[in-house]
Amino acid sequence: MKIAVLGTGEVGQTIGSKLVGLGHEVKLGSRAAGNQKAAAWAKKAGAKASYGTFADAAKFGDLVFNCTLGAASVEALKAAGEANLGSKVLIDVSNPLDFSKGMPPSLLVCNTDSLAETIQRAFPKAKVVKALNTMANPVMVNPRSLPGTHHTFLAGNDAGAKETVRGILGQFGWTPEEVLDLGDLTAARGTEQWLPLWVRIMGATGSAMFNIRVVAAK
Amino acid sequence: MKIAVLGTGEVGQTIGSKLVGLGHEVKLGSRAAGNQKAAAWAKKAGAKASYGTFADAAKFGDLVFNCTLGAASVEALKAAGEANLGSKVLIDVSNPLDFSKGMPPSLLVCNTDSLAETIQRAFPKAKVVKALNTMANPVMVNPRSLPGTHHTFLAGNDAGAKETVRGILGQFGWTPEEVLDLGDLTAARGTEQWLPLWVRIMGATGSAMFNIRVVAAK
Repeated sequence: MKIAVLGTGEVGQTIGSKLVGLGHEVKLGSRAAGNQKAAAWAKKAGAKASYGTFADAAKFGDLVFNCTLGAASVEALKAAGEANLGSKVLIDVSNPLDFSKGMPPSLLVCNTDSLAETIQRAFPKAKVVKALNTMANPVMVNPRSLPGTHHTFLAGNDAGAKETVRGILGQFGWTPEEVLDLGDLTAARGTEQWLPLWVRIMGATGSAMFNIRVVAAK
Repeated sequence: MKIAVLGTGEVGQTIGSKLVGLGHEVKLGSRAAGNQKAAAWAKKAGAKASYGTFADAAKFGDLVFNCTLGAASVEALKAAGEANLGSKVLIDVSNPLDFSKGMPPSLLVCNTDSLAETIQRAFPKAKVVKALNTMANPVMVNPRSLPGTHHTFLAGNDAGAKETVRGILGQFGWTPEEVLDLGDLTAARGTEQWLPLWVRIMGATGSAMFNIRVVAAK
């Protein structure tokens, strides 16, 4: 599959490399065409990896990962272009973290709205699915790096798009039972507002290498 | 120990009954002295159970549980009275849920503030500890109703008060490893903002009888 990964940070590089390793063709997108981090990534990731502008990547991909910083996501997607995004599945991994008020970060949007919904409103034809934003990037692409069962969440308005994302998550190593569909895209308010607790648990345990298991009564 | 439980809803009754079962003397507090729910609870809960106004309860208890609705907590605590609350340990179990905008609920306070901090500012001498607000009340007092290890969180500015709460949680059946201290009271922003995700998981799984286990890399 041809996949666009927008964002050249750790999240984008980790997801891009995983996808290339799975046999997908990946174009990493960034603001400027000659982004050095993207070039270095593509060189290391191999023949199926390439890079370009956000627009180049969005045009290339049949599916688009948004791995940009939450504060810059809407601008990045505008640069990617509504026509290039079209009605593609847009997997939103970003979090609207606000580091401007000090640590730990607060949220730029929350409560009665979410970044995923903001993106969906800006690009009404795109099939936005919120996924993987609830954990550190090494866990996203290698769930078996943690012991036992743990969970990842889906939120989105298009059932077919969520099935597509389930397929990708399966390739990443998530078992079907580990993927919890929380419903429509308003559920992204839940997964984004998990971040303030995630950050505190990271602070208390001293590690980002964790996730949550939903433990239910038998 | 003499313990005040403010709030006659399910959370207050469940915690009150558990505390009586553990041998504590419990006074359930409510807005009006002759609250019928409180009277019925006290009759059922036995000789160590009593009830009264918020002020009666707060005066009685050496330790105070706030189990009122989040939207009404500050008013309830004002009725309890600053002098009666004094410098007691105040365990805040409430959540600032706003049901006025429809379901699922949003939050009345979040992001750069929390209900626990609001309460602490209103009663600066009280030793507010946020605890147990991240799960349904049957799980709070009976963690072994769920299989395996799962976690509960503490946030508060007073180390001694958090130790007192750890002791109570231990009596409820939480093992020491299951109690994660997230730091000062600003961490309540994290545990309160977990609620929007909790509500979505409840909706997706069809049951409130769950909690989360923090699964960390070995």
